[in-house]
Amino acid sequence: MTDIHDLTRRLQRASDSKIVLYVADGLGGLPLQPGGKTELETANTPNLDALAQRGVLGMSIPVLPGIAPGSGPGHLGLFGYDPLKYDIGRGVLEALGIDFALTDRDVAVRGNFCTVDDNGIITDRRAGRISSDIAAKLCEKIDKITIPGVEVFVRHVKEYRLVIVIRGDGLGGSVNDTDPQRTGAAPLKPQGADSASQKTAEILAEFIRQAAIILKDDAPANLLTMRGIAKMPPIPKFQEVYGTRAAAIAVYPMYRGLARLVDMEILDAGHTLDDQMKCLEENWSKYDFFFIHFKYTDSTGEDGNFDAKVKRTEEYDSAIPRINALKPDVLIISGDHSTPAKMKSHSGHPVPTMLVSDICRFDGSKQFGESACRVGELGMFEARYLMLQALSHAGRLEKYGA
Amino acid sequence: MTDIHDLTRRLQRASDSKIVLYVADGLGGLPLQPGGKTELETANTPNLDALAQRGVLGMSIPVLPGIAPGSGPGHLGLFGYDPLKYDIGRGVLEALGIDFALTDRDVAVRGNFCTVDDNGIITDRRAGRISSDIAAKLCEKIDKITIPGVEVFVRHVKEYRLVIVIRGDGLGGSVNDTDPQRTGAAPLKPQGADSASQKTAEILAEFIRQAAIILKDDAPANLLTMRGIAKMPPIPKFQEVYGTRAAAIAVYPMYRGLARLVDMEILDAGHTLDDQMKCLEENWSKYDFFFIHFKYTDSTGEDGNFDAKVKRTEEYDSAIPRINALKPDVLIISGDHSTPAKMKSHSGHPVPTMLVSDICRFDGSKQFGESACRVGELGMFEARYLMLQALSHAGRLEKYGA
Repeated sequence: MTDIHDLTRRLQRASDSKIVLYVADGLGGLPLQPGGKTELETANTPNLDALAQRGVLGMSIPVLPGIAPGSGPGHLGLFGYDPLKYDIGRGVLEALGIDFALTDRDVAVRGNFCTVDDNGIITDRRAGRISSDIAAKLCEKIDKITIPGVEVFVRHVKEYRLVIVIRGDGLGGSVNDTDPQRTGAAPLKPQGADSASQKTAEILAEFIRQAAIILKDDAPANLLTMRGIAKMPPIPKFQEVYGTRAAAIAVYPMYRGLARLVDMEILDAGHTLDDQMKCLEENWSKYDFFFIHFKYTDSTGEDGNFDAKVKRTEEYDSAIPRINALKPDVLIISGDHSTPAKMKSHSGHPVPTMLVSDICRFDGSKQFGESACRVGELGMFEARYLMLQALSHAGRLEKYGA
Repeated sequence: MTDIHDLTRRLQRASDSKIVLYVADGLGGLPLQPGGKTELETANTPNLDALAQRGVLGMSIPVLPGIAPGSGPGHLGLFGYDPLKYDIGRGVLEALGIDFALTDRDVAVRGNFCTVDDNGIITDRRAGRISSDIAAKLCEKIDKITIPGVEVFVRHVKEYRLVIVIRGDGLGGSVNDTDPQRTGAAPLKPQGADSASQKTAEILAEFIRQAAIILKDDAPANLLTMRGIAKMPPIPKFQEVYGTRAAAIAVYPMYRGLARLVDMEILDAGHTLDDQMKCLEENWSKYDFFFIHFKYTDSTGEDGNFDAKVKRTEEYDSAIPRINALKPDVLIISGDHSTPAKMKSHSGHPVPTMLVSDICRFDGSKQFGESACRVGELGMFEARYLMLQALSHAGRLEKYGA
C-alpha cells in the first residue's frame, strides 16, 4: 500500500475537530545577500511568532527537491495529493482559472487568437495582442458554434487568450497542440493519440473550421490556435479520502478551481482578507476543514518587490487572531511553493511550514521563518504528507495496524 | 510520472550555466571517540569553510539510510540515477575499472585463476595468488581463444583477477557464478536463466573448455572460475535526461568507466589533482557539467589512517580556488559514500554535501563538516535528488505544471 489515500481511507476516525489550512501563496523566500534575512524573516509577524511558540515547524518540499511547481501541483501537494501522480493539464488549469466548473466529461483547451494570411500561414501568434474588449466579443461569436453530439463552451480569459471546453461522452484528452510555436507556419492539425482522443481531435478540427469562417473578417484575430488540450484527471474526493467536510475560501478563481478539483465546497470569499475572515467565521460550524488562500505573498514575489512581499506577509499575519479566536484544533501555516522576490518567479526552495495543535511536540522555536523551520520538529518533508500530520494532530486517524 | 528522468526530460530549460560536481570519494567520516571530530572536521579546510558561508549544506543518503554502497551505486546516485533501479553487475564494474569500453552487446565476466587437481576439483581458488606478471601472460594466451559468432576479449586486472568480455548479438546476462566459493568442489557449470542467457552460458562453457586445454601446464593457474556475469543495464544518457554536455575528469579508470556508463565525455585527467584542475581549465568552455573525482579521501579511509585522510581532505580543499576562479554557476561538494578511517571500509553514514550558487537560501553555516551539514538547508536527502537541486540552482529546469 503505497498510495497515501488508501491509508487515509482505512484509518479515518470520526471526529468533530476542525482544521484550518491557511496558505500564503509563494510564502518561501530568499535573502538578498549572504547572511541576510528572507522576506518572511524581515516581516514583523507577532502572530506567527506567537504560534511558533506553541506549534511545530518544518520545511515542505512541494514536489521533489529543487523542483519549482506551478500553482496546480503546489496546491495538490498541500491537499495531500501526489502532484506527480495527478498531473493537471494547462487547458484544465486555464478553465479553473476563470471559475469554469469543469466536469469529468469535459475536454478543456487553452486557445490563442492569432493572425493568418490568405494561405493560412500564421503571421502573428497573438493576433497583435488585441484588447480584452475586442477578444471578449469574438469569444461570444464563436461560442455560438454547434457541433452534433457535444456541447461547446467558449470563454474569454484575457487579451488574446480564451478557453474552449468540449463536453461529451467518450472524449479523450491526448491531442497535440495546434500552435506551431512560430510564425511562418500553418496551425497544426489536431490528432488524437488514441481512439477516444481522435474523436476529440475531429471535433476540435470541426470547431476550427467553423471558427475560421466566423472570424474571417476579424483580422488580426482571424483564427485561433489550441494548446494544453486536457481532461480533468480522475481525482479522489477530499471527503472520501479524509472524511472531512471541506470548504475553500479563496479570492482568486484559480484556487477555487483547484479546491473544486478535489471536491471542496467553494464559499463566497469576497475580495479582501477581511471578507475571507468573515466568511470563515460565518461558516465555522458547517465544515471541519477550511482552506484559506492568500495570494499577495506570491504576486509581490513575482514582481520582484522584496519590501512589498514583506508588507503582504505582515498583512497575512494580521488575520491570525481572528482564526485563533475560533479555536481550530489544528492550524497549518504554509505555502504552495516559494516565490523569492530575488528570483521574480516560483522556485524550488522548500516552504516554511507550521502546525499548531494541542499535541505538538514543541521544538522551542521563538519565531516563524526559514531559519527556524529548517531545524523544526516537522523536519523536511514532501508536501503530500502534510495532510497526514493535519489529520493526525486533529485526532482524525486511527493507528495503523495492531 | 515517478521516474526522476521523465521529469527532467520534460522540464529541461536551455541555459549556458555551468555546474561542477567535485566529488571527494568516501568523504564522510567518523570521530574516533564520542565528542570527537570527524576527519573532515579535523582537517584545516579554509576554502570549503568559505564556500559554506555562501552555500547551503546537507546530508546525502547514497542509497537508503544505513546502506553502504560500492563505488558504482554511490556514483550513480550522485549522477541522479536511482542506484536500486540501475543495478550494475560486478563483471561490468570490473571491466569499467580497467577502462575497457563496454558496449551494449557485451557480457562482462570477472574471472579468477584457480588451481584444479587431476579430477577437476579446485584446490586453490586464487591459484596461489600468482604474481601479476605471470597472470598477465596467461591472459594473453587465453585472449587467443576464438568462438564462432562472437568476439572474445580477455584482460588482466591484478594478480589472479581478470576480465572476460563476450561481444555478440542476443547474449543474455543472467548466468550463475561458476566459482563454488570453496575448495574441494569442481567449478559449477554455467547455466542461463533464460534463452538469451543460455546462449551466453554455452559460449562461456566453450571458453572454459578451451582455457582448460591452453592452461593445463600452467599450474597453479591451470583453470579459471567466473563471477558477476553481467551486461550493462540500459541507462539513459546524461545529456538526454538533463540537457547538459557533461565531462568527467577522473584519474582512476573505475570512475571514468562509471561516467562513461551515463555517456559523459571522458577527458584526459592526467595523474594529479593539479593535472585535473588544468584539464578543467582547458576544457571549461566546451562543457556545461563537470564531474571531478578525487580518490584519496576514500583510500586513506580504507587504510584506517585517520591522519592521512585529514591530510588528503586538505589537499582536496586546496584545489577549490582554481574551481572558484572559473565562476561556476553551481558548485557541488559531496562524496559517493562515507569511508570512516575508524571502520576501514565504506559505510552507510550519510555524506556531507554542499551546494553553492547565487540563489542559495543561506543556512548560516560557518564551516563545512558533518555537524553543520546535519542542520543545513538541503536537509537529509537521497543522493539521486542532488542533480535536481544542481539543475534547479543552475536555472536549467522549468517549473512543473502551471
